[in-house]
Amino acid sequence: MKITILGCYSATPRTFTNPTSQVLEINNHIFLIDCGEGTQVQLRRNKVKFSRIKHIFISHLHGDHFFGLIGLVSTFRLLTRETPLHIYGPKGIKEAITLQLKLSNSWTDYPLHFHELTSKDSEVIFEDEKVTVTTIPLQHRVYCNGFLFEEKQGDRNLLINKVEQYNIDKAYYRSIKKGKDITLDNGTIISNEELTTAPKPTKSYAFCSDTKYDEAKVPIIKNATVLYHESTFLESHKHLCAKTGHSSAIEAATIAKKANVGTLVLGHYSTRYENIELFKEEAKTVFDQVEIADDGKVFEF
Amino acid sequence: MKITILGCYSATPRTFTNPTSQVLEINNHIFLIDCGEGTQVQLRRNKVKFSRIKHIFISHLHGDHFFGLIGLVSTFRLLTRETPLHIYGPKGIKEAITLQLKLSNSWTDYPLHFHELTSKDSEVIFEDEKVTVTTIPLQHRVYCNGFLFEEKQGDRNLLINKVEQYNIDKAYYRSIKKGKDITLDNGTIISNEELTTAPKPTKSYAFCSDTKYDEAKVPIIKNATVLYHESTFLESHKHLCAKTGHSSAIEAATIAKKANVGTLVLGHYSTRYENIELFKEEAKTVFDQVEIADDGKVFEF
Repeated sequence: MKITILGCYSATPRTFTNPTSQVLEINNHIFLIDCGEGTQVQLRRNKVKFSRIKHIFISHLHGDHFFGLIGLVSTFRLLTRETPLHIYGPKGIKEAITLQLKLSNSWTDYPLHFHELTSKDSEVIFEDEKVTVTTIPLQHRVYCNGFLFEEKQGDRNLLINKVEQYNIDKAYYRSIKKGKDITLDNGTIISNEELTTAPKPTKSYAFCSDTKYDEAKVPIIKNATVLYHESTFLESHKHLCAKTGHSSAIEAATIAKKANVGTLVLGHYSTRYENIELFKEEAKTVFDQVEIADDGKVFEF
Repeated sequence: MKITILGCYSATPRTFTNPTSQVLEINNHIFLIDCGEGTQVQLRRNKVKFSRIKHIFISHLHGDHFFGLIGLVSTFRLLTRETPLHIYGPKGIKEAITLQLKLSNSWTDYPLHFHELTSKDSEVIFEDEKVTVTTIPLQHRVYCNGFLFEEKQGDRNLLINKVEQYNIDKAYYRSIKKGKDITLDNGTIISNEELTTAPKPTKSYAFCSDTKYDEAKVPIIKNATVLYHESTFLESHKHLCAKTGHSSAIEAATIAKKANVGTLVLGHYSTRYENIELFKEEAKTVFDQVEIADDGKVFEF
């Protein structure tokens, strides 16, 4: 599982920082999460192949998470993309994008599918044989969702010397990998545990930006391998959290601790701070395994 | 008159080039012309004070001229701007911007005035005591206008020793500067030429992007001090001009020659070319006074 931070600062893009966008590589999928202005340039800068992006998840329609989407959609068109693109985001996202395509008389040649979200409850919005994506309802100034990306359990690993020892026909290998026991011709039952080992543990990534402190999300993100949680403010500006619908580093760490996640990654820093290491210092007073996001940084788990 | 090129490449923003946007300083005004994605960062990079921008002119609603506008409008709001902002552009621009402000629940606190353009004829869209701005209808794939910015003729320069020699009361100075003759108490008429010298010559800037070759604009831009004219293609790709509604460097130079402008500035290069000096070489075969725009370049005339 690999996370490439394209941008992780709040509010306005600057010459040296970018608004929220990140690329998640999980179980052979590439997902783009949020798309602030300049995301397409950040994708180029970080050498992410445009054609590999098939699903884009937008948390909410504030500019620093969304204003780069129309440019990316248009650039895909200019690059003569043919692969379908799926966009998941709050209701209204389709109107905003299609209005601008209409005004510029630039309809995409590739299929563009919008999946507009309105539910205030957590729901599965994408699922295939490899990954499940579930919304994490967040408490912000506008309708906002985080996203939980979970690898699906893979097949069990076949112990090839064991199945050959029992002279089991290859036709059964698939069902054995799925966990089935086997009855030999002589009627003996061979338990699956004897023929296989457990599949590799699954990983999960919970993206939570933007949100005020809210424990309601804890059951949804429980035991996640990695939690990206916004930490817009340090304790010195904690009074701004409730007003703006954001969290402090300590609040992010408290959620990480209650949810028992593996690693907490902090981001969405207010641009007032020069030294983002301070976010890590504050969070570590509550939760030990803390990383800080920064533009261009890559995490592998 | 000063022109700061924020971006002058066509199609998609890249790590090292930006889509169209430029700042024109003329007779104490600062005008922003076009606003591709990333313009707000380019304004910062080129140290243009956001608060000084009061008028934004958008030629057409293709993304490389327009997708940075919503971000800039939003950033003005985050910076607690109070100064009114005037936006001039094709019909539809108001809907595109206001829809996105509505979706992000982020109405501007400062007055935001849209001046939507629909006329296919040249028209004055801004005028005060210093500058006139007139549209230049362009032929492109969508409704598109260039803009002609003209300094207004200033007052004549008073020859102070002359007016004192005739003992003319200061109350008449203003009308003398406006060109009036003076009748002395003894009935003698003193001609204005004796009391003043001519005002400084006015300057003008014609911005023409995007357009196919079209001589209809020549009378409008006749004798302009500076013409910025798009030159998307070199002669080697001339066959693409008509199809895409763009011009070659030689076509731009031909317009410059026919309009008898002072200086031609080329821009809006297709991103397929590595060496933009070739545009200058080709244009100079037709018209001598050629400059090539590039991101971050500043021209003073």
